[in-house]
Amino acid sequence: MSKPFVVGIDIGGTNTVFGIVDARGTVIATGSIKTRKHSNINDYIEELHGELSKLIVASDAEDKIAGIGIGAPNANYFTGEIADGVNLPWPTPIPLADLVSSKFGIPVAITNDANAAAIGEMTYGVARGMKDFIMITLGTGVGSGIVVNGQMVYGHDGFAGELGHVIMKRNNGRMCGCGRTGCLETYASATGVARTAREFLESRAGEPSILRALDIDSITSKDVYDAAIAGDKMAKDIFEFTGNILGEALADFISFSSPEAIVLFGGLAKSGDLLMKPLKESMEKNTMPVFKGKVKLLLSELKESDAAVLGASALGWEAKAAADIKK
Amino acid sequence: MSKPFVVGIDIGGTNTVFGIVDARGTVIATGSIKTRKHSNINDYIEELHGELSKLIVASDAEDKIAGIGIGAPNANYFTGEIADGVNLPWPTPIPLADLVSSKFGIPVAITNDANAAAIGEMTYGVARGMKDFIMITLGTGVGSGIVVNGQMVYGHDGFAGELGHVIMKRNNGRMCGCGRTGCLETYASATGVARTAREFLESRAGEPSILRALDIDSITSKDVYDAAIAGDKMAKDIFEFTGNILGEALADFISFSSPEAIVLFGGLAKSGDLLMKPLKESMEKNTMPVFKGKVKLLLSELKESDAAVLGASALGWEAKAAADIKK
Repeated sequence: MSKPFVVGIDIGGTNTVFGIVDARGTVIATGSIKTRKHSNINDYIEELHGELSKLIVASDAEDKIAGIGIGAPNANYFTGEIADGVNLPWPTPIPLADLVSSKFGIPVAITNDANAAAIGEMTYGVARGMKDFIMITLGTGVGSGIVVNGQMVYGHDGFAGELGHVIMKRNNGRMCGCGRTGCLETYASATGVARTAREFLESRAGEPSILRALDIDSITSKDVYDAAIAGDKMAKDIFEFTGNILGEALADFISFSSPEAIVLFGGLAKSGDLLMKPLKESMEKNTMPVFKGKVKLLLSELKESDAAVLGASALGWEAKAAADIKK
Repeated sequence: MSKPFVVGIDIGGTNTVFGIVDARGTVIATGSIKTRKHSNINDYIEELHGELSKLIVASDAEDKIAGIGIGAPNANYFTGEIADGVNLPWPTPIPLADLVSSKFGIPVAITNDANAAAIGEMTYGVARGMKDFIMITLGTGVGSGIVVNGQMVYGHDGFAGELGHVIMKRNNGRMCGCGRTGCLETYASATGVARTAREFLESRAGEPSILRALDIDSITSKDVYDAAIAGDKMAKDIFEFTGNILGEALADFISFSSPEAIVLFGGLAKSGDLLMKPLKESMEKNTMPVFKGKVKLLLSELKESDAAVLGASALGWEAKAAADIKK
């Protein structure tokens, strides 16, 4: 008999959140531990195992877990490892899939957070039944997960779908954490919005704005949102600028894979018409005629608190296949 | 017993070339007719049927054709139609797959020329065994065919892979035939090279160049190539400019699907180091660190005279599947 539950684990820089999920996408139970408590990865896996095992027992789900899916930064579906360049307390690469599967005796598949979000959306969310869509996560950075022919696009090395790092400004672009300049992420993320605010406050020196009452170096996208809602012209312009550049990017993505929909997720995606109106206009205006009016722009329907665990858990259903894929 | 041959048909603006191909990619026989001779599509199909049937009989291939693959501008794999906006003498949409399959009694699959080239490269060429690659055709325009997980990316509507129309210059970009400005195609195609030559000749008014002896309005990419080979500084700079912008574009494509290779095809791709040196440098320089040094830049190995027919023929092997896909 096939097992009725999967486990989803979302490893963030601060918290590791996990949950037991059924085939309908109902989160049966959740828990969490601190990601940075142990400087040794084995101690971390030990605590994760202890806490998660308690949750499984309490949920009467022993021997009923089909697979464990994990979303983590730089996690590679093919190798099962977390690659270099992440803000985690352990030396990389981290053989995460092997560590967790041997500890639990359950098949494990891992991928990065944005891919997990896309799989979650395809399995339980607004992209159910879609064979071609692009998930864009608008958080601190810009992440993406691309689905083509009903399959995640992992690329030949497992790292495909870095749409936050296509270049939007080829001259005088903003410095990006990836070491290059002008990446989409430096404009269309929460930090990008804050950077735009700082730029506008300086370049429009004479113009009044609620934002001028704030310490310029600690302005957040939330501050800009609040000011825009209060009617502040400059704050509204900042969202217009952000929507415009994101729309230009989405139009190019459409030329690549001609998706049925682009699904937005993350804090910035909840800015309502402030972002969505200029974004939709810019996307349509910049889209190649053959694709115009064809691509839906959707917001994720997954509850934010559950989404990361749900997305990761959806990968748990295919954990066996992933174990086969690994060399 | 499975049938040993396929037919490939390449419908160009001037000539329609066809050939009979075996499973190894050997072109057994070829022929051609004029695309524009008949203003009625049925007369065209009639002549195609007559000429191709003669070829099949002469090649002793009657009842041995597994499928017919057709590459044609704006041809849609899903609908089997040639869509609007093409330079062909018949009203669109043209139900090409139905017309040809009912005339021949053989399954037919169609797609655009660049996708056909990608399938040809995957079946018979330099991309054999690759599951993830991008084909870029550098001709009058810039076409593309994208392969992910061993499958062509058609997108939800069959029109995916328009990489010649990602925007490379967001301000003061060149006018493109698609109605927008700044498309890659306006820079990195044969016509793009000629446009660059005209721009350079005007903007560098004082600089001597072999190209100044030519009529500025009729300069071709071949003229620029010949001048560069003869050592002309400006002509070499034109290739440098072209390679640089194409490399920037390829770097963005890599962030999308992380291909094992990018395969170049078409007249401009045969410019040797004049193009390839700046192109490789620019691609590596602009590629996101996680992908650097991982993606091969390859030239098509298919003989140019056979390539279009070979590419289309490769689609013939899956013509049955395509017939099933159609609603």
